Amino acid sequence: MKVAKFGGSSVASAEQFRKVAYIVQSDVERRIIVVSAPGKRYKTDTKVTDLLIQLGEAAIHGEPVEPFIETVVGRYVDIADGLELSAADFIEQMATDLRKKIETYRHDQSRLMDALKASGEDNNAKLMALYLRHIGLDAHYVSPKEAGILVTDEPGNAQMLPESYEKLRELKHRSGVLVIPGFFGYSLNGHIVTFPRGGSDITGSIVAAGVGADVYENFTDVDSIYCVNPSIVDNPRQLKEITYREMRELSYSGFSVFHDEALEPVYKARIPVCVKNTNNPEAPGTWIVAQRDHRDQPVAGIASDTGFCSINVSKYLMNREIGFGRKLLHILEDEGISYEHTPSGIDNMSVILRANQLEGEKERRIVDRIQTELQVDDIQIEYGLALIMVVGEGMERAVGVAAKATAAFAKANINIEMINQGSSEVSMMFGVKEEVVDQAVKALYDAYFSKQPLS
Amino acid sequence: MKVAKFGGSSVASAEQFRKVAYIVQSDVERRIIVVSAPGKRYKTDTKVTDLLIQLGEAAIHGEPVEPFIETVVGRYVDIADGLELSAADFIEQMATDLRKKIETYRHDQSRLMDALKASGEDNNAKLMALYLRHIGLDAHYVSPKEAGILVTDEPGNAQMLPESYEKLRELKHRSGVLVIPGFFGYSLNGHIVTFPRGGSDITGSIVAAGVGADVYENFTDVDSIYCVNPSIVDNPRQLKEITYREMRELSYSGFSVFHDEALEPVYKARIPVCVKNTNNPEAPGTWIVAQRDHRDQPVAGIASDTGFCSINVSKYLMNREIGFGRKLLHILEDEGISYEHTPSGIDNMSVILRANQLEGEKERRIVDRIQTELQVDDIQIEYGLALIMVVGEGMERAVGVAAKATAAFAKANINIEMINQGSSEVSMMFGVKEEVVDQAVKALYDAYFSKQPLS
Repeated sequence: MKVAKFGGSSVASAEQFRKVAYIVQSDVERRIIVVSAPGKRYKTDTKVTDLLIQLGEAAIHGEPVEPFIETVVGRYVDIADGLELSAADFIEQMATDLRKKIETYRHDQSRLMDALKASGEDNNAKLMALYLRHIGLDAHYVSPKEAGILVTDEPGNAQMLPESYEKLRELKHRSGVLVIPGFFGYSLNGHIVTFPRGGSDITGSIVAAGVGADVYENFTDVDSIYCVNPSIVDNPRQLKEITYREMRELSYSGFSVFHDEALEPVYKARIPVCVKNTNNPEAPGTWIVAQRDHRDQPVAGIASDTGFCSINVSKYLMNREIGFGRKLLHILEDEGISYEHTPSGIDNMSVILRANQLEGEKERRIVDRIQTELQVDDIQIEYGLALIMVVGEGMERAVGVAAKATAAFAKANINIEMINQGSSEVSMMFGVKEEVVDQAVKALYDAYFSKQPLS
Repeated sequence: MKVAKFGGSSVASAEQFRKVAYIVQSDVERRIIVVSAPGKRYKTDTKVTDLLIQLGEAAIHGEPVEPFIETVVGRYVDIADGLELSAADFIEQMATDLRKKIETYRHDQSRLMDALKASGEDNNAKLMALYLRHIGLDAHYVSPKEAGILVTDEPGNAQMLPESYEKLRELKHRSGVLVIPGFFGYSLNGHIVTFPRGGSDITGSIVAAGVGADVYENFTDVDSIYCVNPSIVDNPRQLKEITYREMRELSYSGFSVFHDEALEPVYKARIPVCVKNTNNPEAPGTWIVAQRDHRDQPVAGIASDTGFCSINVSKYLMNREIGFGRKLLHILEDEGISYEHTPSGIDNMSVILRANQLEGEKERRIVDRIQTELQVDDIQIEYGLALIMVVGEGMERAVGVAAKATAAFAKANINIEMINQGSSEVSMMFGVKEEVVDQAVKALYDAYFSKQPLS
């Protein structure tokens, strides 16, 4: 069986609902579908989730809520009308529910927000089930509570509880097509709690792992995952297959198809993921798998991100000082700083981190602490760094992968500020100045992809 | 003024003493000389320091000491005879002193060893002063106590006390040529305490810093420092100039001209060091300086060392876990392990360390602790790693330095296991399998040095 998750743009309008229905109908294995709230129908449109946040803020500030409720409900009315559905009861109920939630959670802002935000997915799942039944499918709305998605009680940051899996497994035995709203679960004391960013992906991934699906399909609005950000390289190569590890390395910097935490449940259950396009379901999409044959294509993709800085410290005889690195990292941890990499020489060590963590007083305090507590000879912070990840399962064993990259940088006359490649890795990291990062990514794309046949 | 230190092979025989005298006479600025104990005269010879250790061990084990005393004293007699010096009193005194030391420190093995070992340098300095006076120089033996070399009371591992500098400064005002034995100082309670390995270099460096010398000359038996180990590359390029930082990076792995700690005092005092050949004093030698013009030669040298391993750990979502790296380093510190580098990816981290630290039970215990305390998904230890350092002040700013190296590896069909280059560094590290390290060093030498004019 397949679990198919449809993202916001895939369920934004009547037209999109029809496409989803077509996709569900065309494969009897698609037995569980997870839906997002209606997303944008056009570039300047507002997502229902954002409308619900506006509604919540109005309620919190004691402003009139009815206009906001009307706008939200209007989105669902449009979809129902476009589908020629008689959904008057459903629509009426939705408005009543929203008012009731505002009343119930009047004095608890975070619960109110969670309840309102979750309603976007919840109502869309109900509407989708209505529509699928309308066209003759044996479809059923299943609430996360009924499905068994139990989570920690942290509003906006729910983590799934492991006991969920037992209940989820039972979904396998239910007949028909089950429609489950994404983005939220229930705490043990019965509250709606939403997942962090990427929440519907998390639901889909949890459900797929829970029922032991053969495939977790993730329907979005692109034909595939690209090997490089299409806003940097025109019309880049599409990826047929990529491993979880590669996806995680890529999604970390500059690849936004997946929120990386969302993949954890299917990664652990070793369930293959297929990223497909709701608007072009015949396209093969991109498979995310545990292993791939990487002989012909050691490098899977190139990702980049800006906004990093490097804290560079040097001290004569540093490497004789047992505990130096640990103490330096301890100071950063103390100050709540997370870091990316720590390249080191014999008498020097650099810590690469996101620069926004050093705002305000923090930079001064960290520099002072490192100077005082570690008695370094020199400390400097270099801002304006970009990191580029060249990612691929085949890199570890392929002679010449690094040579290709460094030659590309040299040819483009780009200075490499940092290189970090470890023995167990599927990635090689390059640090460059932010000004040249796009140029560097283009040069790497040309080196690895442009002259090879499409895979 | 110049402080000149002469290593063991430079003061091993009458012939070598004559060369030293010539060197001292030929430059009136050479006002302070520091001497080692007589070293090897030929390949299979035994250094006086080793003879003294044998003497000490005989004394400790209650074996007859006279034959050892005779051998030691014999080395000095040979020198005195070869120089046609009347040194009967000095020789008589030396034997008496050795017996007295054995008597005094009978019940304290580490002090006995320190006192005996130190006598090698001490007597050589006395003999050198005698000889220099004999040929008409105004030369004076100055004991480390008189000079003011005060050290911590750790036998075999003395560290200079900062108060030494005040007394040492007065040496500037003394007339004539001062001859100071290397390798030891005096503790505050009056004991002889020897420095760690490289001890005479430490004395020379401390004295040079103390008197504020214009140059610290380090006389040895090679014309210069080479850019690569001559046992790997035949007749490699000689270095005219190198910075302290470069020297430190190189001396760390595979370059044995200097014990790296020895340079600290002159490094801090910014006194240039000149490494010269006692057997060919007209050769310009190699200058170790604070800064060099590296436009024509961004890379100064290539060093390599074997016997490393890499602990590779991976854990899904590792980089979200604040404190992961610090905790891993803490476990190693706890177990008394020092490490070299920590390349990291998003979900994995490697720690490179000298493999001999994991002998016996330690490997198992560390693996267990990392598994249990850090809940990693996977941990593997890769043995048989060699590290190669490409060192140069100009590397940071030179486009293409990395490209040259990686192209050399690719051409030689050598897989790079690791790369580590940080933004503030003068070195780039490559990890390769031990079997291919010499081949890799040769390939790098060819890439950086063979086709360029001699500098």
